[in-house]
Amino acid sequence: MRRALVHRIATTAPDDVSGLEAAIAAGRIDPAGIVAILGKTEGNGCVNDFTRAFAVSALEACLAKHLPGDAVAGIAMVMSGGTEGALSPHILVLEHRDLADEAGEGPALAIGVAHTGDMPPEHLGRMGQVWLVAEGVAKAMHQAGIEDPADVHFVQIKCPLLTAERIAGAEARGETTATRDTLKSMGLSRGASALGVALALGEIEAHAMSDTAIGRDVSLWSGRASASAGVELQNHEIVVLGMSRAWSGPLAIDHAVMADGIDVEPVRAALARLGFAADGQLSQDERGRLVALLAKAEPGSTGRLRGARHTMLDDSDISATRHARAFTGGALAGLTGLTELFVSGGAEHQGPDGGGPVAVIAHRAEGRR
Amino acid sequence: MRRALVHRIATTAPDDVSGLEAAIAAGRIDPAGIVAILGKTEGNGCVNDFTRAFAVSALEACLAKHLPGDAVAGIAMVMSGGTEGALSPHILVLEHRDLADEAGEGPALAIGVAHTGDMPPEHLGRMGQVWLVAEGVAKAMHQAGIEDPADVHFVQIKCPLLTAERIAGAEARGETTATRDTLKSMGLSRGASALGVALALGEIEAHAMSDTAIGRDVSLWSGRASASAGVELQNHEIVVLGMSRAWSGPLAIDHAVMADGIDVEPVRAALARLGFAADGQLSQDERGRLVALLAKAEPGSTGRLRGARHTMLDDSDISATRHARAFTGGALAGLTGLTELFVSGGAEHQGPDGGGPVAVIAHRAEGRR
Amino acid sequence: MRRALVHRIATTAPDDVSGLEAAIAAGRIDPAGIVAILGKTEGNGCVNDFTRAFAVSALEACLAKHLPGDAVAGIAMVMSGGTEGALSPHILVLEHRDLADEAGEGPALAIGVAHTGDMPPEHLGRMGQVWLVAEGVAKAMHQAGIEDPADVHFVQIKCPLLTAERIAGAEARGETTATRDTLKSMGLSRGASALGVALALGEIEAHAMSDTAIGRDVSLWSGRASASAGVELQNHEIVVLGMSRAWSGPLAIDHAVMADGIDVEPVRAALARLGFAADGQLSQDERGRLVALLAKAEPGSTGRLRGARHTMLDDSDISATRHARAFTGGALAGLTGLTELFVSGGAEHQGPDGGGPVAVIAHRAEGRR
Amino acid sequence: MRRALVHRIATTAPDDVSGLEAAIAAGRIDPAGIVAILGKTEGNGCVNDFTRAFAVSALEACLAKHLPGDAVAGIAMVMSGGTEGALSPHILVLEHRDLADEAGEGPALAIGVAHTGDMPPEHLGRMGQVWLVAEGVAKAMHQAGIEDPADVHFVQIKCPLLTAERIAGAEARGETTATRDTLKSMGLSRGASALGVALALGEIEAHAMSDTAIGRDVSLWSGRASASAGVELQNHEIVVLGMSRAWSGPLAIDHAVMADGIDVEPVRAALARLGFAADGQLSQDERGRLVALLAKAEPGSTGRLRGARHTMLDDSDISATRHARAFTGGALAGLTGLTELFVSGGAEHQGPDGGGPVAVIAHRAEGRR
Repeated sequence: MRRALVHRIATTAPDDVSGLEAAIAAGRIDPAGIVAILGKTEGNGCVNDFTRAFAVSALEACLAKHLPGDAVAGIAMVMSGGTEGALSPHILVLEHRDLADEAGEGPALAIGVAHTGDMPPEHLGRMGQVWLVAEGVAKAMHQAGIEDPADVHFVQIKCPLLTAERIAGAEARGETTATRDTLKSMGLSRGASALGVALALGEIEAHAMSDTAIGRDVSLWSGRASASAGVELQNHEIVVLGMSRAWSGPLAIDHAVMADGIDVEPVRAALARLGFAADGQLSQDERGRLVALLAKAEPGSTGRLRGARHTMLDDSDISATRHARAFTGGALAGLTGLTELFVSGGAEHQGPDGGGPVAVIAHRAEGRR
Repeated sequence: MRRALVHRIATTAPDDVSGLEAAIAAGRIDPAGIVAILGKTEGNGCVNDFTRAFAVSALEACLAKHLPGDAVAGIAMVMSGGTEGALSPHILVLEHRDLADEAGEGPALAIGVAHTGDMPPEHLGRMGQVWLVAEGVAKAMHQAGIEDPADVHFVQIKCPLLTAERIAGAEARGETTATRDTLKSMGLSRGASALGVALALGEIEAHAMSDTAIGRDVSLWSGRASASAGVELQNHEIVVLGMSRAWSGPLAIDHAVMADGIDVEPVRAALARLGFAADGQLSQDERGRLVALLAKAEPGSTGRLRGARHTMLDDSDISATRHARAFTGGALAGLTGLTELFVSGGAEHQGPDGGGPVAVIAHRAEGRR
Repeated sequence: MRRALVHRIATTAPDDVSGLEAAIAAGRIDPAGIVAILGKTEGNGCVNDFTRAFAVSALEACLAKHLPGDAVAGIAMVMSGGTEGALSPHILVLEHRDLADEAGEGPALAIGVAHTGDMPPEHLGRMGQVWLVAEGVAKAMHQAGIEDPADVHFVQIKCPLLTAERIAGAEARGETTATRDTLKSMGLSRGASALGVALALGEIEAHAMSDTAIGRDVSLWSGRASASAGVELQNHEIVVLGMSRAWSGPLAIDHAVMADGIDVEPVRAALARLGFAADGQLSQDERGRLVALLAKAEPGSTGRLRGARHTMLDDSDISATRHARAFTGGALAGLTGLTELFVSGGAEHQGPDGGGPVAVIAHRAEGRR
Repeated sequence: MRRALVHRIATTAPDDVSGLEAAIAAGRIDPAGIVAILGKTEGNGCVNDFTRAFAVSALEACLAKHLPGDAVAGIAMVMSGGTEGALSPHILVLEHRDLADEAGEGPALAIGVAHTGDMPPEHLGRMGQVWLVAEGVAKAMHQAGIEDPADVHFVQIKCPLLTAERIAGAEARGETTATRDTLKSMGLSRGASALGVALALGEIEAHAMSDTAIGRDVSLWSGRASASAGVELQNHEIVVLGMSRAWSGPLAIDHAVMADGIDVEPVRAALARLGFAADGQLSQDERGRLVALLAKAEPGSTGRLRGARHTMLDDSDISATRHARAFTGGALAGLTGLTELFVSGGAEHQGPDGGGPVAVIAHRAEGRR
């Protein structure tokens, strides 16, 4: 049997690794078992957000003290910028332990990780990216020991973006990129990545997708994809989370799809399925069992939410992705009582227009085995 | 008997008065009965937010077609800038109808309005402002026919702020202002106004307050004050909302105090007292009975919420007031299912540190009389 | 003979018309002669900049006291948002006086104004807009009495933009708009307007332009166009400035084209042609003769200026147009010693990539006739 | 004789050290000789600007490959965030070479570096900080071999700031800090540091300073101090630049004081003293001799520049320091034709109100010895 552990650690700055160091020193985390680290950092979550790369740089330097270089390079690091409102910067360390000698009882949380090769900038936001990601998701499922796509509850992807430099590079090679707007490139990259997940999980068939649909046809979406774009990579890091009988342990995962930015009832239902009372805000006691909540947030493209106008898309001072993270972050914090939530902005093709997928990882109700 | 009506009207821009015009034309609103208009506009809610003045200018021009000039000037107009996240721009038109011939049955929502005289900039954020506001609140209570401060559920105040010009003016007269930081002046003005409410309602006694406590001693707060600062006035506009046996009609008001930015359970309890089921998000049907929700939001001064770090106070790109409105707005929208909420930022001395007062106005459950 | 007057009046807020009122009261401005008002207001200059509409609303209300309604409606009002850095909010009132009895001596500054009809949103940023504007420029030249396009030194255009609402409206009619990104729509509208000027002035021939070239082919540009986009109109207001023998008076105009955002030497040469010493910064005395400077600023699309990287295009906190206005505004203020400059952002197809046209209006050297 | 070298190296991101690596690999820079690195990074230059720390982290990692740890720690690293407008991110590597065997001819550019001890947060912005810095400046002068304060042309200081955490820490110890506003703390720290320079250079005597004057009395200023605040340190790094007969080589330094944000003529005069023609913008050829320009920029506290209103202090969307850097950066780029300028914001007590000191380092006119 295998066992997945998820450690939620608060950070005091993008490069704060003191909590991780302490957990390793105390033996709570075995560095050799770390397969992925997801993190919320306090940058703007947009093009010029260097807090993500700074966090990755600090995490790599920290882990390099405990692991050989290629082992560090094999760990998927998915930093998502933007802790608007009272969202709280933290990392989620995903650890995998082999328990050859333990019987254990499945199913339980299972984790798989894959990296794609580097992608040329001109593939970004096009079918080339969709196929590349779909292949990576299949690899990560295989690694996790999950065969049935229905057992996948969340796929977190870190994908690249375009910068002025990269666009110029592509154009120097005679290629055109899907956009020359760097901020917009983040959305296209997230969208194509999400469609890659939908393709891999059988949510949408390939023939229903096309270059022109990406970033435009909001009826195409995955209910389990979550993508973050970052300037610090040119490939994709893919983390698949699901339930598998090959894994045991105290953790379970479930997911929900919010139909809009305040549609918390499906999340409440997912919490109930995981054994939480969830009538009203989670009690302090129940919050202790809530290990991680991962959600996507975005402003609906219609400029309306339940018929009422919102101003996110017309605000030239604050990026709409920042507005959406803050607002949906607030709705989810109101539901759970927790602010260390992995709410990430930009939900293109991730859930319906204006909504998004949410995953919940929890200790099972009957105790923390 | 008197009757209070509250009309919630969506706006498509700060100067959009078409909804108000239509309601007047259709006879739903009698211009002569309007005592106050509260509005959320889509500016930044900070110093250089001209959407508030623009809205007031448009509302005045609209009403001037129906009312004599001094009647327009007597209407309290409290625009609050900032519809972060999916908060939706709207106005709340408060109307007062005399029903001499109707029996009616109280108690019901009661409204009182008062204006203070102009305040010299050097009084802003000091006891001079506290006393001025307290006197205004007493006047507005008297006008509303409310004698017992316990029957007051909300006091909305529009207060002035300092600009570079006003500071220079005061200094030219040999005076010093409480601050030379214009953004900070908004907080001091809101704080002193809130303490004026606390003084008038007997929540805090005068000897417990001082110039130095204003903006500093977070243990001093009113549970029913809500203040917004705007560049467009130099006096205070005060609107008292409460319950009174001298008023009848279908509307009732109650209030709650949030202990922090996601503390929605007291608001749920207030909703329950007003007859809402309120287990989970309000149903679409119940939302129809929710006339208005008015709340204050602010980042806690400790930099933490329930122990978890937030980054609002250290963000130099987005004002902390904008973060807080978005986040608490999201929490309240998650609770109510509604985004036309009057969430206003800057809750200095309005509710406990990091939290704030919330008022709910609703049609009574037994039907919409 | 006709005479053009240009009055530069500082404002203390977007809706401040006290300076205009005072000039009218003192007889310095004859309201009946006003043909156009250009203004810099202190908003963000982007989609949600309501300071422009607020200024227009205040100017119209002010002028309505002196003129019949249709006369007010005939005055072109071109507000440009954004006074970044130390750029100073002001208005330029362009007045036209008929001097039937005066001999006068030309040539001198000549002004012509035209309005186009409303444009459907789906024409924005496409050839439909180019033709519409070209026709309007021809009309304005005719009105100014300028026949030779070489005598035109500046064409200021106020053009519309897309909002979420307008895009939805077009899509409801089965049309697609050139973009669904509201901020981007401002650039496309400015660009198509500039190409309309280039077409009218014979700078570029029609067959060299196309829908796909608009906003993309930076080799197409006018050296005399300046366009500002605003949410407050759906048509175009066009002001042509040039030299004409049919006009006399103390004012003259010349223009220059900056090759990049700091290319001040061509502007220095234009100043010299107008009789300024212009070695080093203009002296205080010389500054008194400088009536108005109108310039366009934009970040170069290559992400570089003279080979050095700039970060404007990758900044998701501050719009690139704001950066460019501040920086080029600083360069021009360093040259002239003046901060009441009409520097407007977004120079798509207005001057070469990264540069822009500049017009200078001055009292002639020999005194202020 | 000693020789100072200054290497200006463009960067493509905050953590880009490839240019430094290449210069070391090519032998142009001897790592052992590096005494200081000044850099402009592309963050917001305010509280939550992590690009500075990220740059320092990358530079330290790079140099650690070439130098022992304590040698790296001894190098002053002064990153200044904010490349608004077209200012271009770059580093200035200051190198010191001992030329025991060369005769050389002085005077030439001389460099001295010192670090103070850690400062408790409650000293920030008070006389405790002034004295600490003055002592450090004296040490750095001694190290540079400069005895006469008149030979000092620039003192660059990196100083700490307050964060919510640090304020809480001080308060937990029963201390109060000079402010609880983290952005404001940056200004107080810069101001007190500048007064420390003024004290050390004899520009102002100690008895003329006081806790209350810091950040308030704008008549107190140093004409040669430049301070940048950063979250990444709790002590001060001090770099003194001047002319000394103990140093030889091709480089010279001079300085000027701008009276306001566009007062470029004193800088032009300094350029002339260094042998530049400087009538009009520097020619491309002359620009090749301009090694570095270091300047401070700030919005004047009066809200006016040469009598014209600016809006920097009332803008709640963009920090006034960002506005000022962009605008004065543009003025200086217009003068020099160069955008790789070390323009740093926040000039409290650094130059007169609204102005600031400027230093120019150049290769001597007669060739690049």
